[in-house]
Amino acid sequence: MTSVGIDAIEIHTGKLKLDLANTFAPAKGEEPEKYTKGLGLAASSFPDTYEDIVTMGANAAYRLMDRRDLEPADIGRIDVATESAFDNSKPVSTYIAGCLEQVFDGDFHHANKGERKFACISGTQSLDDAYNWIRAGRNRGRSALVIATDTALYARGDAGEATQGAGAVAMLISEDPDLVELSAEQGYGSADETDFLKPNQQFPSVDGKRSVQVYLARMREALEDFESVAGDTHPDDYRLVPFHTPFPGMVRKAALLGYRHMIRDTSIEEELAGDIGRQPRYEAFDDEEAFLDAVLEYTDSLKETERYREWYDRAIAPTLKIAREVGNWYTGSVHVARASGLKHAYENGWDLTGEKLLVGSYGSGAQAEIHAETVQPGWEEEIEGLTVDEQLANRRDIAFEEYERVHDAHNHDKRVDDVEEFTVPEDEFAFDGWGRMGERKYRYVE
Amino acid sequence: MTSVGIDAIEIHTGKLKLDLANTFAPAKGEEPEKYTKGLGLAASSFPDTYEDIVTMGANAAYRLMDRRDLEPADIGRIDVATESAFDNSKPVSTYIAGCLEQVFDGDFHHANKGERKFACISGTQSLDDAYNWIRAGRNRGRSALVIATDTALYARGDAGEATQGAGAVAMLISEDPDLVELSAEQGYGSADETDFLKPNQQFPSVDGKRSVQVYLARMREALEDFESVAGDTHPDDYRLVPFHTPFPGMVRKAALLGYRHMIRDTSIEEELAGDIGRQPRYEAFDDEEAFLDAVLEYTDSLKETERYREWYDRAIAPTLKIAREVGNWYTGSVHVARASGLKHAYENGWDLTGEKLLVGSYGSGAQAEIHAETVQPGWEEEIEGLTVDEQLANRRDIAFEEYERVHDAHNHDKRVDDVEEFTVPEDEFAFDGWGRMGERKYRYVE
Repeated sequence: MTSVGIDAIEIHTGKLKLDLANTFAPAKGEEPEKYTKGLGLAASSFPDTYEDIVTMGANAAYRLMDRRDLEPADIGRIDVATESAFDNSKPVSTYIAGCLEQVFDGDFHHANKGERKFACISGTQSLDDAYNWIRAGRNRGRSALVIATDTALYARGDAGEATQGAGAVAMLISEDPDLVELSAEQGYGSADETDFLKPNQQFPSVDGKRSVQVYLARMREALEDFESVAGDTHPDDYRLVPFHTPFPGMVRKAALLGYRHMIRDTSIEEELAGDIGRQPRYEAFDDEEAFLDAVLEYTDSLKETERYREWYDRAIAPTLKIAREVGNWYTGSVHVARASGLKHAYENGWDLTGEKLLVGSYGSGAQAEIHAETVQPGWEEEIEGLTVDEQLANRRDIAFEEYERVHDAHNHDKRVDDVEEFTVPEDEFAFDGWGRMGERKYRYVE
Repeated sequence: MTSVGIDAIEIHTGKLKLDLANTFAPAKGEEPEKYTKGLGLAASSFPDTYEDIVTMGANAAYRLMDRRDLEPADIGRIDVATESAFDNSKPVSTYIAGCLEQVFDGDFHHANKGERKFACISGTQSLDDAYNWIRAGRNRGRSALVIATDTALYARGDAGEATQGAGAVAMLISEDPDLVELSAEQGYGSADETDFLKPNQQFPSVDGKRSVQVYLARMREALEDFESVAGDTHPDDYRLVPFHTPFPGMVRKAALLGYRHMIRDTSIEEELAGDIGRQPRYEAFDDEEAFLDAVLEYTDSLKETERYREWYDRAIAPTLKIAREVGNWYTGSVHVARASGLKHAYENGWDLTGEKLLVGSYGSGAQAEIHAETVQPGWEEEIEGLTVDEQLANRRDIAFEEYERVHDAHNHDKRVDDVEEFTVPEDEFAFDGWGRMGERKYRYVE
C-alpha cells in the first residue's frame, strides 16, 4: 500500500503581536505570570487590518506551492477548515483559489473545494478527507491542499481573551509524502457537549471549566478507541506527541493524563511503583470518590517523577514552543504543534526518520481524534523550509490601545473600516474592500 | 472491489405548506403561472416553529435507523451538510447525535461527526467523504450517516422568495448498498464566483441571472471533467439524470444543454440532422457571436424534437416531481431529485436494477460535480419505505399572513419566539428552547 500523508507544510502568522506579559497584563492590572506561567503563553498573533482568514490561508498556500514548484493542475482538492467564516454559504476555499489564480498560470476549475466546521478539530478532519480521497484512488495522481485558518478572537473582557491568536497552516497531502505518513488507524471520542459555542455570534460563549473537563474526557475516549484498533500505546513508541493547544497549560493536563494511561500495566508503572505506588484500580475501591481521590494523588506524584519530566520535556515541550508565541489558532493549532515539535527536533539534530508521532486533535462541542504518524525521509528539508521564526520576529508589537482598535476592526458587528494598517503589505495577498454583493475582494500586493 | 454507495434514504419535509398558485401569487398580485410554469413550482415546504435543521435532520435519521434496525454502534461517521447553520463553531451533527441518543440505547461517541458548507453542493461532498472513508478501509464495518438539511429562506420580497423550501434528507452510506452504488469516477467544474452568497447574513444576496449562467457553465465543465475519466456520456446510458433543483425551470435549461453535449458526434445527432441540422462547430465560424447565435438556434430546435422530449420525459421529468411540491432544499435538493426519479420508476414498474443514473450536483460560489450511480437489487424495497407522499399530504396549508409569521419566527435577526405552533408535534424531535449558553435544546415528543 502506498503511503499517504503530509507532503509539505507552511505556516502563516498574523502580522501583529500582542505581548501578554508586557502589554496585556499591565493593562489588565494582572501579574504577567498569570499568562506566562498559568496559561503558558508569551504573546498572541493578530491579523493586521488587511489580513483575514482568506489572506492568511492564501499566503500560506502560495508559499507552499511556490516552494514545491506546484501548479494548479497538481491540486485536485482544496479544503479549508475554519470556525471564523464570514459567509454562511460560499466557502473560504473558493476565495483562496481565486487569490491563487491571480498569481499562477492555469486554474483550479477541476479541484473539489470545500469547507469544514467543527471548532478546532476540522483541520484534522479535512486532512482525513484528503487522505481517504487518495486512498480511495480518486485523486488521479494529484495532491490535496488542506488549509486551516482562523482569527481566534474572544469578546473583549472574556476570560479567553488572553488565549487569542490568528494564523493559517497550509498542508499538502500526497502519496509518498515527504513529511509524515498518516496511520490508517484512528480513534474518536465524541459527544454532544455545550462547552464552547458561537450561536449566531462571532465570538464564543465559553464554559472554561467544562471545556477543560470535556477536552480531557474526549481525549481519553479517543485514545481508548485508537488502542482498540492500533493496539496499546506506550510512551516510548512516540518521539513527539502534538496535541491541540488552546494554550500550553491545557496540554500540560492532557499530557499527564495521557502518560498515566499509556504506562498502565507497563514496565514503567512497575519501575515507578517503588516511589509512587501502582496506579489505583477501580475494582480495588469501595466507592467512586475514594477511587478518584487516589487517582488524583497518584497523578500528582507521577507529575513530579523524573521519568515523567523527561518524557514531557522530550515529547511534549517541543510541540508548545510556537504556540507560546502565537496563542490559539483554532483549526491550525494541532498542526502548529506538530510543526513546532519537528522544528525543535531538526534544530537539535534528532534522527527522526521512521520514528512515530502520536497526534491528538480536539474541537469543542466536542470531539477528539487520535492517530499516529511516521516521519518520512524528506522531513528535514521540509522543516528547513519553514519561515516561521522570521515571521514571528517581524511582527509589529502593538500597544494596548492599538490592540483595542485591531479587535474592533475584526469585529463583524462593529463594521469599523477606518482603522489604519499597522504594517505595509508586500509580496502577499491583501484584503481589497467589498464588492457590490457584500463579497470580500482581494489583490496580490507586489 | 466491494461496491460502496447509498444503502438507504429518508426524506423529512417541513410540516407547513405555502401554496404558490393559490396563496403566494394572489398576495403578490401575480399570475399563478409565473410560479407554476415559469419556475415549475406548485408549493414550498416550511418548518413549523418547533422545527429547524436539527429536528428535520434528526427525524429523517431516526426514521432511517429505525426502519433499518440500526443501532448507534453501526454508525462510524455522521456528516451534516447545510448552509443554514445557527452556530459558527459547533456542528449540527453533534446536536443531531444528541437527539438520537435520547431515543436509542448506546451512543455515537466513536463516530466522527462533521459539518460541511458549500451552498447546495455540500450534501454530495459529504456523500463523497463517506464513500472515500469506506473505500480507504477505515470504517471498521460501519456505515456513515449523511444528512443534508436546510431552511432555504430568502429575505421577504427577494426574487428568490418563491423558490424557498425546508427539509432534510438522510442517507446511509455502506458497503454493498441496497439503493445505488456510486462511481469512483467523478467530474468537477469549480470557480470563484459571486452569484449567490451570505456575507455575515442569514438570507442570501443573489444575482439571479448570473447564478443561472454559472450553474450551466460549471455543470458543463463538470461533465467534461467526468468524461475525461469515465469516457463519453450518451443519453441512452442513463435511465434517470437527477440534477440539483433550485427550481425545476433551472433544470429544464441544464437538461437541454447536457443533452446537446451528450449527443454530439453520436447517431442521435445524425438522426436529427435531417430535421434540425448538425450542431454548430466552433471552428466553422469566423466570429464567436455568429457561433453562439447558431448554437442558440440549434438548441431551440433541439428542444422541440420528439427525441429530446421523450428523453426529457423519461430521464428528467420524474426527478422534478417532489421538488414541485416542496421548493428548494439547498443541500438536500439533488438527493430529493434522485429519490423522486426512483420513486416514479418504482410506481411505474420500471426494471432499474443494474441501470445507471447520471447525477449533477451544484453549489453557488460555485461548483458542480457529476458522477454516475448504478441501481442496486434492493432499490425497490428502499423506495417503497419512503413516507414522503404521506408527509406532503399531511402538511398544514398556511395562509399568507401565517407565512409572514413563520418567516419571522425563523429569522435569526428578529428573535421572535412567541409565534404559536401551527401543528402539534408527535413522535418526533422538537425544539425545546434555549440553554444558558445560547445553545438550542431538543426533546423527543411522544
